Amino acid sequence: MTDVMRRIALAKRPEGEPGDECFELKEEQLPEPGPGEILVRNTAMSLDPYMRGRMDDVKSYTSPVQIGETMTAQTVGIVEASNDPNFKPGDRVGGWLGWATHGIAKAGALTKLPASGEMNAYLGVLGMPGFTAWAGVTAYAKLKEGETFVVAAANGPVGSLAGQLAKRAGARVVGVAGGPEKCRDVVENFGFDACIDHRAHNSPKEMRAALQEACPNGIDVYFENVGGHVLGGVLPLMKLHGRIIVCGMIAWYNGAGDETGSLPLQKIWRQVLVNRLTIQGLLQTDHVARIPEFHAEVAPLVESGEIRHEQDVAHGLENAPEAFRGMLKGRNKGKQVVQLSEEQQ
Amino acid sequence: MTDVMRRIALAKRPEGEPGDECFELKEEQLPEPGPGEILVRNTAMSLDPYMRGRMDDVKSYTSPVQIGETMTAQTVGIVEASNDPNFKPGDRVGGWLGWATHGIAKAGALTKLPASGEMNAYLGVLGMPGFTAWAGVTAYAKLKEGETFVVAAANGPVGSLAGQLAKRAGARVVGVAGGPEKCRDVVENFGFDACIDHRAHNSPKEMRAALQEACPNGIDVYFENVGGHVLGGVLPLMKLHGRIIVCGMIAWYNGAGDETGSLPLQKIWRQVLVNRLTIQGLLQTDHVARIPEFHAEVAPLVESGEIRHEQDVAHGLENAPEAFRGMLKGRNKGKQVVQLSEEQQ
Repeated sequence: MTDVMRRIALAKRPEGEPGDECFELKEEQLPEPGPGEILVRNTAMSLDPYMRGRMDDVKSYTSPVQIGETMTAQTVGIVEASNDPNFKPGDRVGGWLGWATHGIAKAGALTKLPASGEMNAYLGVLGMPGFTAWAGVTAYAKLKEGETFVVAAANGPVGSLAGQLAKRAGARVVGVAGGPEKCRDVVENFGFDACIDHRAHNSPKEMRAALQEACPNGIDVYFENVGGHVLGGVLPLMKLHGRIIVCGMIAWYNGAGDETGSLPLQKIWRQVLVNRLTIQGLLQTDHVARIPEFHAEVAPLVESGEIRHEQDVAHGLENAPEAFRGMLKGRNKGKQVVQLSEEQQ
Repeated sequence: MTDVMRRIALAKRPEGEPGDECFELKEEQLPEPGPGEILVRNTAMSLDPYMRGRMDDVKSYTSPVQIGETMTAQTVGIVEASNDPNFKPGDRVGGWLGWATHGIAKAGALTKLPASGEMNAYLGVLGMPGFTAWAGVTAYAKLKEGETFVVAAANGPVGSLAGQLAKRAGARVVGVAGGPEKCRDVVENFGFDACIDHRAHNSPKEMRAALQEACPNGIDVYFENVGGHVLGGVLPLMKLHGRIIVCGMIAWYNGAGDETGSLPLQKIWRQVLVNRLTIQGLLQTDHVARIPEFHAEVAPLVESGEIRHEQDVAHGLENAPEAFRGMLKGRNKGKQVVQLSEEQQ
């Protein structure tokens, strides 16, 4: 057992893509758990698009990460020491201990994970991204048999589960992903009916044409997590009483301009009015009371292989910034995690 | 009893404001009701913003009015002749007989009105505009005591009822209307807590500042029926889990540019995401099954004066086009109707 911990703190707020100067790797004395506290050694941490928003000094869901603070992340790990009677060394736990090899938490901030099985699933398909997809589909999609469901970033952890859940609800499911390899994966591995390569259709007009072919009856539900020209292509195809679930807009997170950005509000408003669309913002924290229901429903399906998931694993805390940038550009294939300890996955 | 009828047909599709050349007043032989049909003499007709949309050759809720066809309107009138056993001459009825002095309908397309009381209320507060307001507030606003409700065109038939219903639900109600006289009326007659003159605050920024003062806790529900710079001022003030009910966008109906039109989609998307807004398109036709419930609830409140309404009356079918243009510019004070027969109101 080591007596040091390493963590990555926010060193500087980024302009556009967060370069290495935005992150500082710190090595510190391993803290001792106080009364009621638990010391966890993180075996892996998650990288997710929302983290980019936390780096900006802008009001968002929660306060931004402050300079010098550890970057936020969902983690899985092993209890090393515990001053809480419900946790003992060796227990497998999920938590939010950030970009760090270790962390201290109270019992209420940790979730016990099953003693066997793949821990990293609790960062992806059974973690925050999976829960986001499940909450969005079950609370807002209101899918009817035979409707058409479109989701972008379809091979990511949110999109791939959202699509599989929509498929199980009887929808025609069309994904959008970057590059032919990802698109093949979305169809062959995740079982979508079709997948469109947004790199091969890089304007709203081209995206619309490709979507029109894949969705001959129009789009009933769009699960939005990219924004950009994909959204520009989707909007005109939305059907009467269609639903748009706005979960993210990664195309816009690095402040990149996009020609869809100039789509006038008036056109969207007209679509909302004429087709009586529902546009609904989604954040998983609004739904946390349903996490047990989510685990009860989805964990067995993951276990049995009926629901598929994929991981892209970077190794070592020091490689987190580069993996993070890659994820923001869509370079990862499947859920991006950083393995912090090789002995447990 | 005359043997001619007059009607106004669409003569030409407008570009921008519909000039006199867009309308043709036709005098024709009074039709005879066929088997199962009823002949109605219209005593008044309604003028509403949606009619402007029907004049364009663009897919909207329904097909556009065709050249030569009678302009659409909700009407009230008196049965003159009937081949249906449920209707007899002298019955007071509501229907959709258009910009015309007379019309023929089947029983299913007419509603019997009470034998006494003000018929014209069934064109406004108890007609399609009132029902639109009631359906939007009851189905989508989800108001909680103490929340803040904002509605534009607040002295119009939709806005004035929406605000009064929100007030009855315990909300702080802030209107937006054009000019100091209308604003005073909204507060003094309709009982709103405040009303902002959009002419005195004619940019999104000024509108935002004025709204901020009137809505110190932000905006929970925005009942949208204007678009334009009012919307630009409202958007940044929307609160967590806020609801926007999109019922119309009169500021944009005549194809007028508006600086809010260039508000980039990205900013709205960010608002939807960060505050988990719900944006919901509203059209009363989706809710028609609830019309009896609406009448049962609201008609007694109108009768008792607990719910107030106002009318702006133009006289004579030939003056409908000018009254229509005035309404699109907000020149009317209260529900715009055209009185077709002076003996019954």
